[in-house]
Amino acid sequence: MPVQVGVIMGSKSDWDTMQHACEILDELQISYEKKVVSAHRTPDLMFEYAEQAAERGIKVIIAGAGGAAHLPGMVAAKTTVPVIGVPVQSKALNGLDSLLSIVQMPGGIPVATVAIGKAGATNAGLLAAQIIGSFDEEVRSRVQARRDRIRSEVLESSDSL
Amino acid sequence: MPVQVGVIMGSKSDWDTMQHACEILDELQISYEKKVVSAHRTPDLMFEYAEQAAERGIKVIIAGAGGAAHLPGMVAAKTTVPVIGVPVQSKALNGLDSLLSIVQMPGGIPVATVAIGKAGATNAGLLAAQIIGSFDEEVRSRVQARRDRIRSEVLESSDSL
Amino acid sequence: MPVQVGVIMGSKSDWDTMQHACEILDELQISYEKKVVSAHRTPDLMFEYAEQAAERGIKVIIAGAGGAAHLPGMVAAKTTVPVIGVPVQSKALNGLDSLLSIVQMPGGIPVATVAIGKAGATNAGLLAAQIIGSFDEEVRSRVQARRDRIRSEVLESSDSL
Amino acid sequence: MPVQVGVIMGSKSDWDTMQHACEILDELQISYEKKVVSAHRTPDLMFEYAEQAAERGIKVIIAGAGGAAHLPGMVAAKTTVPVIGVPVQSKALNGLDSLLSIVQMPGGIPVATVAIGKAGATNAGLLAAQIIGSFDEEVRSRVQARRDRIRSEVLESSDSL
Amino acid sequence: MPVQVGVIMGSKSDWDTMQHACEILDELQISYEKKVVSAHRTPDLMFEYAEQAAERGIKVIIAGAGGAAHLPGMVAAKTTVPVIGVPVQSKALNGLDSLLSIVQMPGGIPVATVAIGKAGATNAGLLAAQIIGSFDEEVRSRVQARRDRIRSEVLESSDSL
Amino acid sequence: MPVQVGVIMGSKSDWDTMQHACEILDELQISYEKKVVSAHRTPDLMFEYAEQAAERGIKVIIAGAGGAAHLPGMVAAKTTVPVIGVPVQSKALNGLDSLLSIVQMPGGIPVATVAIGKAGATNAGLLAAQIIGSFDEEVRSRVQARRDRIRSEVLESSDSL
Amino acid sequence: MPVQVGVIMGSKSDWDTMQHACEILDELQISYEKKVVSAHRTPDLMFEYAEQAAERGIKVIIAGAGGAAHLPGMVAAKTTVPVIGVPVQSKALNGLDSLLSIVQMPGGIPVATVAIGKAGATNAGLLAAQIIGSFDEEVRSRVQARRDRIRSEVLESSDSL
Amino acid sequence: MPVQVGVIMGSKSDWDTMQHACEILDELQISYEKKVVSAHRTPDLMFEYAEQAAERGIKVIIAGAGGAAHLPGMVAAKTTVPVIGVPVQSKALNGLDSLLSIVQMPGGIPVATVAIGKAGATNAGLLAAQIIGSFDEEVRSRVQARRDRIRSEVLESSDSL
Repeated sequence: MPVQVGVIMGSKSDWDTMQHACEILDELQISYEKKVVSAHRTPDLMFEYAEQAAERGIKVIIAGAGGAAHLPGMVAAKTTVPVIGVPVQSKALNGLDSLLSIVQMPGGIPVATVAIGKAGATNAGLLAAQIIGSFDEEVRSRVQARRDRIRSEVLESSDSL
Repeated sequence: MPVQVGVIMGSKSDWDTMQHACEILDELQISYEKKVVSAHRTPDLMFEYAEQAAERGIKVIIAGAGGAAHLPGMVAAKTTVPVIGVPVQSKALNGLDSLLSIVQMPGGIPVATVAIGKAGATNAGLLAAQIIGSFDEEVRSRVQARRDRIRSEVLESSDSL
Repeated sequence: MPVQVGVIMGSKSDWDTMQHACEILDELQISYEKKVVSAHRTPDLMFEYAEQAAERGIKVIIAGAGGAAHLPGMVAAKTTVPVIGVPVQSKALNGLDSLLSIVQMPGGIPVATVAIGKAGATNAGLLAAQIIGSFDEEVRSRVQARRDRIRSEVLESSDSL
Repeated sequence: MPVQVGVIMGSKSDWDTMQHACEILDELQISYEKKVVSAHRTPDLMFEYAEQAAERGIKVIIAGAGGAAHLPGMVAAKTTVPVIGVPVQSKALNGLDSLLSIVQMPGGIPVATVAIGKAGATNAGLLAAQIIGSFDEEVRSRVQARRDRIRSEVLESSDSL
Repeated sequence: MPVQVGVIMGSKSDWDTMQHACEILDELQISYEKKVVSAHRTPDLMFEYAEQAAERGIKVIIAGAGGAAHLPGMVAAKTTVPVIGVPVQSKALNGLDSLLSIVQMPGGIPVATVAIGKAGATNAGLLAAQIIGSFDEEVRSRVQARRDRIRSEVLESSDSL
Repeated sequence: MPVQVGVIMGSKSDWDTMQHACEILDELQISYEKKVVSAHRTPDLMFEYAEQAAERGIKVIIAGAGGAAHLPGMVAAKTTVPVIGVPVQSKALNGLDSLLSIVQMPGGIPVATVAIGKAGATNAGLLAAQIIGSFDEEVRSRVQARRDRIRSEVLESSDSL
Repeated sequence: MPVQVGVIMGSKSDWDTMQHACEILDELQISYEKKVVSAHRTPDLMFEYAEQAAERGIKVIIAGAGGAAHLPGMVAAKTTVPVIGVPVQSKALNGLDSLLSIVQMPGGIPVATVAIGKAGATNAGLLAAQIIGSFDEEVRSRVQARRDRIRSEVLESSDSL
Repeated sequence: MPVQVGVIMGSKSDWDTMQHACEILDELQISYEKKVVSAHRTPDLMFEYAEQAAERGIKVIIAGAGGAAHLPGMVAAKTTVPVIGVPVQSKALNGLDSLLSIVQMPGGIPVATVAIGKAGATNAGLLAAQIIGSFDEEVRSRVQARRDRIRSEVLESSDSL
């Protein structure tokens, strides 16, 4: 099966956050690849990756980065494959800088931004699955099944307060 | 042709912002519907809309709201169709409240958040097109053609500085 | 005695914060129930809970949530019972996101918002008691007695500086 | 009929905002009084007002203020009548200062805080009505009727997009 | 010698911060008293303290508080003795709420605000000394001598980098 | 009569704000001088001004500045005369930058910071008067008389709501 | 004379801000070129421009951008010529997003960031001149002469208060 | 070899951050000196240092400071040598105060600001090297070689995800 989702991150240290996206993709049986691609330290690799994504059959790119966090926006500038941006929590400003750098894209080049940190990475995986699920009924029903399971867990958790 | 994108907004006053999403969809020949659906004032309609979206064939929902801006997240809670959230610029806090309310979703229910205001609405239209374009080569090439045109305009604009 | 106050929270992890509301209600002998009700993971339960609150005799609802924190506002949209919102401190943004998502409600649907975290949960319990106390002299005098006691403690604490 | 709601504000210039609370009280036929009471310029009057509120039969106090905005919290410190705080939009910081000064009360003395500016003032009126309505079925049904009317207006507004 | 500086704080837990003001006053041999005076929990004591300060010969009041932090501003409203406000670092918002609540006073009632936390408390002590020193040459020369000593320490510290 | 208060500002454009300090000093009959002294454009003049202030008999310095706003803190570093800092409202960040640059002084060198903009400038004049009034009964009674007059105005304003 | 400074901006609409950099360069007789180069809309041109800058003899690049503002950082990633970043004031967030996106670069790729808006653009021109002036005595003396002139203007402006 | 870069910091406690600038200069074989120079505690030393920098042959000054962080801007006011400002992470406000105090300089006196904390200090060293490298091919090639090495490390790190 060809890779459907590309998970990239600006630094190996982002893996602590980005692994939560990969866990969701594993759970929902969506094929993916994961790579460190740095906007600032490997800019040519970044452009190459973005340029080839569509022809390689990638349907969604998930890009995580912190601080100035240019990776998601720059990848989005070089491909028409939809890009999901995950703001990694930064040290001084807690990820507010990462969030604004990713979400405040100018008109013309969108990045689908999710929450700062772990919750955002989890949701990036789910959003990728929902996008694919909009065109693949089987994936959609796996997403729905996961939601049903989570709902049951919430209902049960109430009893143990 | 069935409606592919649902564009909803929390209040008629959000139309000034959200029309920029619709203009993009018109330009890229993607079928859509537009409605006022308020999370707080028409909650039942909101749930009904979200619940029926998938079976009605809607592939992407674009939801714009300002202030507490619960619409995108609550619609996302009731459907597995991907939801793009547009933070409408609010009066006192300039849309920072709208942005945080939309983007900081808990793990489990993603909202694909774009920039505050007009640029965000434009990009919501483009993101919807790119999502559809990932599965429809003709839409993708329209998105690419628009980018090529914009690039030319930027290059020309440099001469008139 | 029928339940007078409903204490709900978006996740079991909010209990660390929300227990401080319950402690106050215990202390002031106000009957309450506590439940996990998630806006995003159990939306139908949330609506059902809100719709039935008034007829079940609930006088005040206390709702705690963090991050996007849609629970208080969405419950408020589905009932005319007054809703007190407690912003739970979030990881990345320290509860500023929770606060803005809860307090910046549009005109039409109010949420009575209190401080972020433990102090807010304590005050949610007290505010519920004061609301009931406005119509029940006995509850009011219990609130007053608690204040008198706290005042004495403050006065004494000064001696030990 | 005795006055049920006291609407106070820190300065006459706050009236532009606070009138929206009074309009709601008029509309819902709830008796109220309105006064300028400044925490910093008339502190003794403020304490006197707060001390007498309960015995005068006031059920809810609505207090609006901007900037340091000490009025709601200081009134709350001197009465057990529930106090709703309205952050008036300030010039330099857009009301973020007003909001934080009002909402971040220490454990022990709650203020029911609503949104910054006009929406908050409107909601302060509605929240007062909902509090009274929790103990007065007729007021509750007036609140419900207003919501029904607003819902219809929203539904109609969608047609004119 | 009569007490020249009154050091008050909203809670005993503020002592960790406020002791740094007292250390400076001890070091510069300025007479002071220290008390817990809570704006919200002992409002009458606060007013009484402020009203009597001038006639008791107090030249400067230092007031520390966190969160909504109404103490400095409310004391200032009840006396013409200059009031120095120390924003105590709060849990969720790191003292930004304390700072804004103290510094953003309306025209008419000033509070001399210093930095958040320990540095602010130290500077509150020094500012009180400088105010007294403007009218008492001996105090001024003690302040100057402290500065000379600190300058020497800084110069020496450079050698050990 | 020697000059008691030095009013300085970083740029002539700050006069719109700083004139409100001078109006108060005029009203309370406190002698003052006013000058443009720029930390960044006339640093030597700034140091000279600060160094000579005490021997010239100046009791309080009021310094207004915007943006990076180094003037109050740098003057404070070169004199033991108490320095009041007025954050002038800046264009992009509304004076939040000015406020933080002025108030967040390190332990050792205090600046008595007041509110952003006009209210702050007014309060700077009043704070200077209160500082002098702590050692000059006549000035104190003028400050008190002004407060009494303002209180009456507030009380009257309530009648015209 | 070869071009020493490259002034680029993300959009023609940034020219209102960036012209202030060019005015300084004109005034100080430093040769420059100006171009619209968009990180997101002309990414290949951006990389090409950055890659050729050093060999074309450019000594400093000034790059202005607003919102996500990836231009300065991405150019810096592709050249070792020092890059000065000018945050252009954005609509919703007043340039705080632009500032954080430009300044919060990860360790490895610096951007020399200046203030938001016009003051920043002016200073970008001056900083470029100072960098060149560190290695070219004539340019340095022109910078110094400009400072001397500005100082005189400030001193004179004080007389007209 | 004469000293090319002066590394100064406001306090010895800033060394934890600023050593990262020195490590880069060591690595790239650029001569430098390091000193504690405090804007507020040793203002005369600061002015003296700045005034002599150019004639001593210093090409770039790196100045780190936290909180009000006046050091970089005041040094810049007294020399035409380019000044790089490093915002040291502060306790309460995480360095946002340091950043704004350093970057928001008025038109006329630029400071080349880098990121908050360690990444900023590292980049200050690199920026100094790039400035020198613009006029010294050997330094430039050392900077380029470092980038090439880092790029390889990033590429390798991807394999170990």
